[in-house]
Amino acid sequence: MPIGSPYDKVRAVEWEGRALRLLDQRLLPHSQTFLMLDSARATAQAISDMAVRGAPAIGIAAAYGVVLAARDRYRLSPHTWKRDIAQDLDLLRAARPTAVNLAWALARMRARIDAVEGDPVAHLLQEAEAIHAEDVRGNRRMGELGAALLGEPGGVLTHCNTGSLATGGYGTALGVVRSAYAQARITQVYADETRPWLQGARLTAWELVQDRIPVTLIADSAAAHLMRQGKVRWVIVGADRIAANGDTANKIGTYSLAIAARYHGVKFMVVAPTATIDPALASGAQIPIECRGADEVLRLGLQRIAADDAQAWNPAFDVTPAALIDAIVTEKGVIVAPTAEKIADLLSLPSQR
Amino acid sequence: MPIGSPYDKVRAVEWEGRALRLLDQRLLPHSQTFLMLDSARATAQAISDMAVRGAPAIGIAAAYGVVLAARDRYRLSPHTWKRDIAQDLDLLRAARPTAVNLAWALARMRARIDAVEGDPVAHLLQEAEAIHAEDVRGNRRMGELGAALLGEPGGVLTHCNTGSLATGGYGTALGVVRSAYAQARITQVYADETRPWLQGARLTAWELVQDRIPVTLIADSAAAHLMRQGKVRWVIVGADRIAANGDTANKIGTYSLAIAARYHGVKFMVVAPTATIDPALASGAQIPIECRGADEVLRLGLQRIAADDAQAWNPAFDVTPAALIDAIVTEKGVIVAPTAEKIADLLSLPSQR
Repeated sequence: MPIGSPYDKVRAVEWEGRALRLLDQRLLPHSQTFLMLDSARATAQAISDMAVRGAPAIGIAAAYGVVLAARDRYRLSPHTWKRDIAQDLDLLRAARPTAVNLAWALARMRARIDAVEGDPVAHLLQEAEAIHAEDVRGNRRMGELGAALLGEPGGVLTHCNTGSLATGGYGTALGVVRSAYAQARITQVYADETRPWLQGARLTAWELVQDRIPVTLIADSAAAHLMRQGKVRWVIVGADRIAANGDTANKIGTYSLAIAARYHGVKFMVVAPTATIDPALASGAQIPIECRGADEVLRLGLQRIAADDAQAWNPAFDVTPAALIDAIVTEKGVIVAPTAEKIADLLSLPSQR
Repeated sequence: MPIGSPYDKVRAVEWEGRALRLLDQRLLPHSQTFLMLDSARATAQAISDMAVRGAPAIGIAAAYGVVLAARDRYRLSPHTWKRDIAQDLDLLRAARPTAVNLAWALARMRARIDAVEGDPVAHLLQEAEAIHAEDVRGNRRMGELGAALLGEPGGVLTHCNTGSLATGGYGTALGVVRSAYAQARITQVYADETRPWLQGARLTAWELVQDRIPVTLIADSAAAHLMRQGKVRWVIVGADRIAANGDTANKIGTYSLAIAARYHGVKFMVVAPTATIDPALASGAQIPIECRGADEVLRLGLQRIAADDAQAWNPAFDVTPAALIDAIVTEKGVIVAPTAEKIADLLSLPSQR
């Protein structure tokens, strides 16, 4: 995949001619180590072990994993490979059962398998590369649309990691940051460190440093003080799920940022592909919130930081009501001051593949 | 010092007959280790190295350090000890030059030195113990006053460490938590972990576990989500400096909590002795905010968590405007909806030693 912008150096997932190359995100920012995967089994293991993370990136990795599976199955048995590959698809699907993009990408690959005749490798590789390219193209489109909203140059604040590491490349919220920085619409990027997993400190800061975009980390709790100083004009975040009315589930801490932003007159932008919108959920109250293990708060790495008998409450996400969101940016267009009606109208537009 | 409540087991600073006993807070919560200090020099070192922290606790430790200095100086030279001890006072004062309670406690000890005749040890010990006892008495008084504000039983949220570890005993905001829990006015205590130093995880959780008060840690950024769930009725925090109009400087993250509390209709209480109020500062805009080193955010303990070229902004405090504060609780009484006039009236009341 050609990388056109000087602010787009990072690729977590790449096809390398005969193998899938993954940047091992567990080792960032301390070591930039790549895994070369030459089988579906190895790909499923890498997804399961979180060497690759971020729903779009997982879906793309799995699509390439299907190419590897087809190569092996077809070589072994050209007549039964379409049946035999079912177990590889199952293995890949089970690697992270909750990631919706994973099942979606595998369904697309399965449809292509069903249609192909003769040696399938070139055809399936074409489909996997299409999935990958569509993701990057969507991110670039969102980058342009989001950057155009920013107005006068100023500082922005982001949360968690929504960049090249979480997607096929370029990123969602971080794609807007890249496009806007290239257009000199951003003077400084602030990134929440994003406790408890520290995606901001470990991943977002690393990504932006690779692209030489100036990044300043802050403790999550310093965001309101930062806004009070007038240092940011926009908060730009991604989304894990968006309800039909625009209520948005995203990494824990997003809601707190939205409240502080409104209090200070700072604008709040959500950047996510339309696939993130779930029209079946009327409002954010219906979005299930995953509570993760207490150890993520009580420990840091291998080190226990809290008293032995202390408990912890560790919701992984929170819900920001649509009323606190100034704009939702998708690959199909921008929704300013989101409502259920505006979102339904946007979803009815044709997809641009 | 007798400890009257079942919820008051922790003492960070104690006089042990012939030496000063300090709980080494650098090792909490992993190890409960005490330092036995028998000289002013050792006391100054312990303050400087942050074995003891929290402005009131530092002042009390220094007062006992003066007792140790007087014992040594008087034994060495009964005729010149009052002159000789000046260098010990200087050493103690320089140990943490910014802690206002330190200078205040040393000034009280100096006045007693000037007045004493003959062997000074018993007299100076009496003064140091008075400083210590007044602090605990003030904290207990604030605990009662603050607890009375809480209304129906419910959850509370606190930030940083404002407990026995930071004071002569019992604590300020955590003193209110202790009193209210003893009166069954609190069903659950939530504590912010308080990045970057993790005082909540390392110290507050440990203190409450010692007293068997149920404590649940949260990532700082989860506080707004917690309020949205209706799990807390009050946020209770301490203060580092309060301006004449009630604007309050406290640990970074306090301001963010105050905004989220107001948004959710959760009440916000500041607990601090009147010595914390600085009538010379008209508003919070005049309170200088210390920015500490970036490494506190970029590292955790000895481990680097962020990319090598990432920067960090690390303000240690923020300012909460008086308009977001429902009550300031002092040892002289409670100020509801603080204004400059109400604060001036309170300060004009006589002290209750």
